[in-house]
Parts: sequence; C-alpha cells; structure tokens
Amino acid sequence: MIRVTVWNEFWHETRHEAVKAVYPEGIHAVIADALRKEPDLEVRTATLDEPEHGLTDDVLESTDVLTWWGHMAHDQVSDEIVKKVQHRVLCGMGLLVLHSGHFAKIFRTLMGTRCSLKWREAGEKERLWNVEPGHPITQGIGEYFELPAVEMYGERFDIPHPDETLFISWFEGGEVFRSGCTWRRGHGKIFYFRPGHETFPIYYDANVQRVLVNAVRWAAPVCIVPYPGAPNWAPLEPIQEKLNPYGKAGVVQDIE
Amino acid sequence: MIRVTVWNEFWHETRHEAVKAVYPEGIHAVIADALRKEPDLEVRTATLDEPEHGLTDDVLESTDVLTWWGHMAHDQVSDEIVKKVQHRVLCGMGLLVLHSGHFAKIFRTLMGTRCSLKWREAGEKERLWNVEPGHPITQGIGEYFELPAVEMYGERFDIPHPDETLFISWFEGGEVFRSGCTWRRGHGKIFYFRPGHETFPIYYDANVQRVLVNAVRWAAPVCIVPYPGAPNWAPLEPIQEKLNPYGKAGVVQDIE
Amino acid sequence: MIRVTVWNEFWHETRHEAVKAVYPEGIHAVIADALRKEPDLEVRTATLDEPEHGLTDDVLESTDVLTWWGHMAHDQVSDEIVKKVQHRVLCGMGLLVLHSGHFAKIFRTLMGTRCSLKWREAGEKERLWNVEPGHPITQGIGEYFELPAVEMYGERFDIPHPDETLFISWFEGGEVFRSGCTWRRGHGKIFYFRPGHETFPIYYDANVQRVLVNAVRWAAPVCIVPYPGAPNWAPLEPIQEKLNPYGKAGVVQDIE
Amino acid sequence: MIRVTVWNEFWHETRHEAVKAVYPEGIHAVIADALRKEPDLEVRTATLDEPEHGLTDDVLESTDVLTWWGHMAHDQVSDEIVKKVQHRVLCGMGLLVLHSGHFAKIFRTLMGTRCSLKWREAGEKERLWNVEPGHPITQGIGEYFELPAVEMYGERFDIPHPDETLFISWFEGGEVFRSGCTWRRGHGKIFYFRPGHETFPIYYDANVQRVLVNAVRWAAPVCIVPYPGAPNWAPLEPIQEKLNPYGKAGVVQDIE
Repeated sequence: MIRVTVWNEFWHETRHEAVKAVYPEGIHAVIADALRKEPDLEVRTATLDEPEHGLTDDVLESTDVLTWWGHMAHDQVSDEIVKKVQHRVLCGMGLLVLHSGHFAKIFRTLMGTRCSLKWREAGEKERLWNVEPGHPITQGIGEYFELPAVEMYGERFDIPHPDETLFISWFEGGEVFRSGCTWRRGHGKIFYFRPGHETFPIYYDANVQRVLVNAVRWAAPVCIVPYPGAPNWAPLEPIQEKLNPYGKAGVVQDIE
Repeated sequence: MIRVTVWNEFWHETRHEAVKAVYPEGIHAVIADALRKEPDLEVRTATLDEPEHGLTDDVLESTDVLTWWGHMAHDQVSDEIVKKVQHRVLCGMGLLVLHSGHFAKIFRTLMGTRCSLKWREAGEKERLWNVEPGHPITQGIGEYFELPAVEMYGERFDIPHPDETLFISWFEGGEVFRSGCTWRRGHGKIFYFRPGHETFPIYYDANVQRVLVNAVRWAAPVCIVPYPGAPNWAPLEPIQEKLNPYGKAGVVQDIE
Repeated sequence: MIRVTVWNEFWHETRHEAVKAVYPEGIHAVIADALRKEPDLEVRTATLDEPEHGLTDDVLESTDVLTWWGHMAHDQVSDEIVKKVQHRVLCGMGLLVLHSGHFAKIFRTLMGTRCSLKWREAGEKERLWNVEPGHPITQGIGEYFELPAVEMYGERFDIPHPDETLFISWFEGGEVFRSGCTWRRGHGKIFYFRPGHETFPIYYDANVQRVLVNAVRWAAPVCIVPYPGAPNWAPLEPIQEKLNPYGKAGVVQDIE
Repeated sequence: MIRVTVWNEFWHETRHEAVKAVYPEGIHAVIADALRKEPDLEVRTATLDEPEHGLTDDVLESTDVLTWWGHMAHDQVSDEIVKKVQHRVLCGMGLLVLHSGHFAKIFRTLMGTRCSLKWREAGEKERLWNVEPGHPITQGIGEYFELPAVEMYGERFDIPHPDETLFISWFEGGEVFRSGCTWRRGHGKIFYFRPGHETFPIYYDANVQRVLVNAVRWAAPVCIVPYPGAPNWAPLEPIQEKLNPYGKAGVVQDIE
C-alpha cells in the first residue's frame, strides 16, 4: 500500500468563481479521486489553510509520496514546513511537483535554482512527446498525447539538468518545454509534471491521470533512510596517526 | 583576466594558536597567494567579519569565480548574502567549495541536500585518485596524489549525483570519498574539492594548489546571463485561442 | 515472474582444476542457485559452447534480465550474438555485467568505451561502501560490506559517467573503484557489479548474492519496446511546404 | 591553434545535380570555409573516397576536433577506420556529429544505441530553442533561432541521456527534437547538432556556422591521454596476501 498525500494551495477555488466552476471541491479532490481508483494507493489530502498546512509530523511520517500544487500563495507556505518536507524527501519520500508548483518553495529548495520559465494563458494546443516509452511513468501513453487548450510554459526552464527527461512539449504558439523531468535528491525521487491549471480542466484528462498514477508508484520509496548526521567515525583499519597541532577539539558544525 | 574572490570565515585563525601557527595570515591568504602566481588571475579576498562578509553587490558583480572556506561559523553567514551569492552563481559566476565548506549555507542551498558525511581527525594518509585525467581541473596531476596527514571524510556524502566525479579518495583508515565533484546550477559551474583543514597545512601542497588554479580557470563563466524572471510571452506562431473561463487575470507568482 | 538467463563463459571451470575446485558446476550454477531461492525469479543458464552460445532468438525473447560472466574467451563470443543481445537490451531487457565481464564485447558495445582498469591478483581485502542506501539494489546491505580476499580492480575505469554510482570499493593495497554502476541504454537498464572471480569464491558470499537478487528485480523491464526504425513521419499540423530542390527522393540510410 | 578535420561522405554532391547546385564543392567545403574565418582554427578536409577515407593515422593523430557528415553511404565506412576514430575520441579528440550523421557508424559505436529518429522532408520551419544560454556552444545565439525550410527530425531520438541538452527544436508540423546534445566518452567530448541537409542550404546559415565554430572550440581537448591498457598493478600499501588457489597465472583478456 502506497500512502499518498495530495497537497493543494486551495485558494483559487475558494476565491474565484471561474475556478470553482471547474474544480468545485478543489484541484486536490480531483487528483485524489483519480488516485483512489487504484487499489494499491491510500490517498488523503492536505491544504494550505489547515494547521501546519495539513503537513504535521504525523502526516509526513506516514506519507510515501506527496503531490504538490500551488500558485498564488507560494509565499504563504511556512519555511519551517518546507524544511520538514525537504527533510522527508531527502529520507526517501517521493515528491510530485505539478504545473505552477515549479515556483513552490519546496521545489526551489530541492533544485537550488530559480525554476523560472516563460508562460502564456491563451488556451492553445499542447502536444507532449513521450521521449522514454520504456519508463514506468510513461506506461499507457503512446508516442504523444495532446491537450487541446492549455497555459503555455516555455524554455528556458531554470532547473538542474534532469536525471531523466520523459516528456517534451510542443506548443501551438511556437515554444517547447521539458514537461516531465525526474531527479533524485537524498534518497527521494522527484518528478516534475507540467500539465495543469486552475481553470483549464487538465486534471480530468485521462492521460494526465494515468501519468500521475504511474508517477506515484515510481516515486514510492523502497525504504526510508534516517538522517545520519555527520558522525565522528572510528577507523576500520589500523592507522599511523600523525601529529595534528590542533588536537581533537575540532567539531564539524552542522548548522541545522 | 579572471577575477577571483577568495572567501574565508577567518575565525579559527584569530581564535586558536594552533591554527594561527599554520595560517598566520589566514587560510585565504595562502590560497590567494597561490592563485596570484598565475598571470591571468586577478585575486582579492573577503572574510566573514567584514561588512556584508566582504561580499557587497560591487564585489559580487565583479567576481568571476568565488572560492569558499568555512567551518565553525556557517550559521553566522547572513541568509541575505547567501541569496545574493546564489543569484550570482545562477547567473554564471563559478564557485569552488573547499573542504568543510560542504556544510556552508551556500553549498547546501545550491545542492538542495544536506551535504553530510563521516569525518575523523587522526592525521592519516589520503590518496586521491584522478578519475578523469583528460579534464581541465586534473591537468598536471598524475594517476593519483597523496597527502600524508589529513582529516578523513567518508561516504555517504549527501550530494546530488555529480555531473562529473574527478577525484575519489582512499583513506588509510578504510574509507572512500568523492573528493572532486562538479555540478552546473543555472549558468554557474560549481566544484567541490575535499582537501583542506585549519591545522593540517593542506593548502601549501603543490598538487592542491594546482587543482585550485585549474578549477578557477574551469569555473570562469563565458558570459553572465541576467535573470529573465518569468515573462508573459507572446506567441511566435498564430494560435487558435480557446475559451479560458478564468480570463487573462492569472499571474505567475514569483516569490522572490 | 521475472525470467532470468544466467550466462557464463564456462571455460575456466572446464580447463583449470583450481577453478573446478571452487565452482565444480560452473560459476553460472552458483549464481543461478542463488537466484532460484527467490519465488518471483524463473532462472535458466546459458554458456559459450552451446549452439549460439545458448542465446537463441527464443531464449533472448523470453529473457527479462540477462547476467553476464566472461573472462578468458571474450573474443570467442560471436559478433552476431552480441548484436542480438544489444538489440534486446535496447528494447528493454535488463543486463547485469559481472566482474571480468567489464571487457565483454556486449558491455563495450553498450558503453562505447574501452572499459579498461587496473588489476592485481593478490588476495587482499576489499570494502564496498554503499553510497546509495535508498536504492533498490542496495537493500539489505549496511553502510558497507567486506570481502576478505579478492582480485583488485582499480581506477581509472574507462566507462561513461554512470547514471548512478551505488558502490565504491576501498582496497587494502591502496586503490579505489566504482564497483556498482548503473546506466540506461535504449529502454534497457544495465548494472555493472565488480565482485567476482574464478577462484576466489565470491559468488557464495551472502551480500554479493543479495545484491544480485536486488539487481535482477531492479533491471526487469516494465515493458518491451520494439525497435521503431526511422519512420518517414507525416505532419501532425498543417505546414507550408517550401521548395526542396532535391524532391522527396531522399531516404534515411539505416545501416542495420 | 585547434586542428580541425572536416569529414564529408561527399557522395550526394557528386551524384545529384540538385545537391551540386547547393554545395558545388561539397558540404565539407562550406563548413571548412566557415571555420577558416577563425584565426585560431587550422582546418583541412577528408572524404569517403580518399584512401583510408582521408583519415590516416597521421591525420587522426594531428586532429584535435573532427566533424562528421554522412548520409547515403554510412555502410561504406570501413570498420577499421571507425575503430581508429573511436580510439582517438576516447583519447581526447573532439567529435562533432552533424545532422544525418546520427546514423554514422562512429556515432552509434560511441553511443551504444541505435540513434534512430522520425524524419520528414517537407521544407517546413524549425525553431531551435537555446536551453543553455550560458554554455560555450550557444554564445552569440539568442533565445532561439529559426531555419525557414528544413528536413524534420522528431523524437524519440534513441540516444543515451545527454550530459547536456543545449537546443530543443520546435517544428511546424508538430514535432520536437533534442537538437544539440553533448556527451563525454573516454577523454573526448562529443556534440551532436541536428541542422543540416544536402539540399536545404543549412550550412550557409550564420547561426549554424556560429554554433559550429563555438562547438569546435568547446570540443578541443586540453590534453591527449594515451590508452593505458589494463595494467597488472603493484600495491601501493602493504597487503596481507591470502591464498589464491589459482595462483598468479590469470591474465585479463583484452580483446582488442
């Protein structure tokens, strides 16, 4: 059983009628429903306005894979929670970052870069090419799939070179984008997936849902590795100690 | 002319007699002297206790490559300066992170991981194997070089998989370490180099100095790329706009 | 059910009494026995002197993961069979290359490099450090494991930069080695694992067997992707054809 | 001074009037002319029908960077010459593989994959997005550049995951392609660059010529590293030899 927590900012849906019309229960509800159809996934949701954004220690420690959608309130996510989520990813929790989550604090923190891109809301066609048809995340997707009306994201996407590039998008307006990318950070697996928006009904799309289900399974950890700290480690072989004028007083300063 | 800024915490040398005995003018002075022998390098230094840690906007904007040594006062480096250094690296400035700098805020920020490791101060022998003899950073180094008495760093080193692994260390006490690693983040090149310590006189070693000189040249940018932000981008091809019930009001929220 | 074919050169064991003493039924028999303990693995063996080296089309097409051990007769492996194995890997079959298999034609063909290394048969101690404890292949292995008497392999190992470096070895005689490395080629996953020898009884070691079992499961494909060739592809969008003086006569020449 | 050899199959130009009309002296002549404008490049050419394809030992040993264009006669290139070129790349020579060279024996040999792709000769528009504006190869290129009428190449491009992806193409007909990719193999740097064709006059384009000049400089080696073979290596530290029943007779079999 893979334990999934679907996180959503859930502000657009409570503030804008146009968004509520598309996602009356919130984006998280639609994503969670799609995942709940799978018998091996145990799914709950969490949102920004809950205490600790719904990401208490208990929740994080019982989450195998976290999905993240945010947009207008990235700066409302507390740095302390971001640090806890980062810690959990580094120990092995999988993370799926969706669409406008490219600017989420947790994604930037794990990438070390700005994660900026070009964008345009014009309702144009997108075709996502499946560059790695043998990968677990792309199973069930053909050579490509199309979304009829989307917000465009264009390169340069300011990310570290991905470990794997699974999808590359073609946009009607003339741009391209690395739309499905994976990285490992610590012991956690990270997948960024471009599709999504608050008014275009992307998360109802069957191909998008298929990729999300596949990605959850791919990102699930085989084990959780506790943080070992920076141990002062005894030698495993006999050594000839040479004089160290500073003595043994030195201590590695771990700032966390 | 490559403009180098050699940064040093400079606390050990002002607080501990044993360190002062080895580095009377500070670790930065020895590193800077080694670099100054090269006619194509223009070298200055900066330290923690200077205003803005010596890393003012003017200094950063006129720095091509920054070298970083810190140990006991990582948490004294201001988050604002770290953010500025990160910004400059992402725009293209090279960064050399030395020895205990593995726990520096700037390195952790760029890596997204904890950068933890095992350690032992026993004055044992280290042999650094040159895994990439065709790389610019390893020129002038043979199959390996040795340091007679060092602090040990052992795996697992909690870093993202390097783009290149140039040196792997063998330690007398039985450990191994990826001692020379490169990454690109944004438009900047980053090199982590393990050797160094505040009392073992590592930075006087000819091979270590050779690697530092090589790495400065390797890390120098071919250009500085200003941060483009996240522009709303006009289409380059005619598009058939489809209805977006949300309209054009959506704005990407850049939290920085 | 994962279908595994354990391939062995099987020449040392039939020619040298000292080898026969350690592996009376052949190295493949010991590896196959270890894998057969796992209920989800279906295991058969194949050897050099069988017709088509035991790797007929039928065998390859019903193999999910192939393990490869060879040493003294690499040049006796037919180029045609190598090409078939390569084809099957590119379509998705997993490949485990063991010890002296570093010089096997199939490994060199997939790597594109010479795969050379240093070596010494002195029966010294090896300690394999587990660099990625969160990886499927390293499950059940602690921080490191030791082999008391081995043939040494030393860097530089002439391989393309691995996608993942799972084990780094420390040798008593002073060398290091990237002992567990992964790559993807086409749709297939490849794992090189250093331990092994024809007289040191390495394949009886519990940790080595554990890694082999883990690696077989890791390398098993999620699907087999047939070779698509180089199709002349019709446009998916309307295009404005411009004059091509050469006309449509051009044909991409696929040399295979 | 960087010594460049521009290799061309030179069959289309001698057999097809339409090609001769575009490249009367051959594709190599146009590429060589573009490179010769640079004072630091020393340029010669070589073609398929010359003895040893113009790639004698003398030529290869005095070549820093080789560029490769072929299309209709890939199978006419001798395996022996391919092996020599591979050897030289692994020792450090740079290699630029152009357009239909994706199916050249030398490229497939170095990649280990089939290097297949989709294609269409319809004279459509291509827009190459510059994904890495801080990279030496993309200097002088803006956010993108366009070619008005090209042969399309579409994904999936069957290559190992590149070390760097510098250009991604958008095609009028709806496809995308990783059009500028780098890899290191052995000590050599490899750049694949998609643009080019025998009748579309791509190699006269200023942006294409700029990329070629940049790439030659990027690919030039800092040193040539001779092949070390697989040496039997004496220990650097004292070891406790354990009994090896096979004795010291074992020899690593290098099949080359």
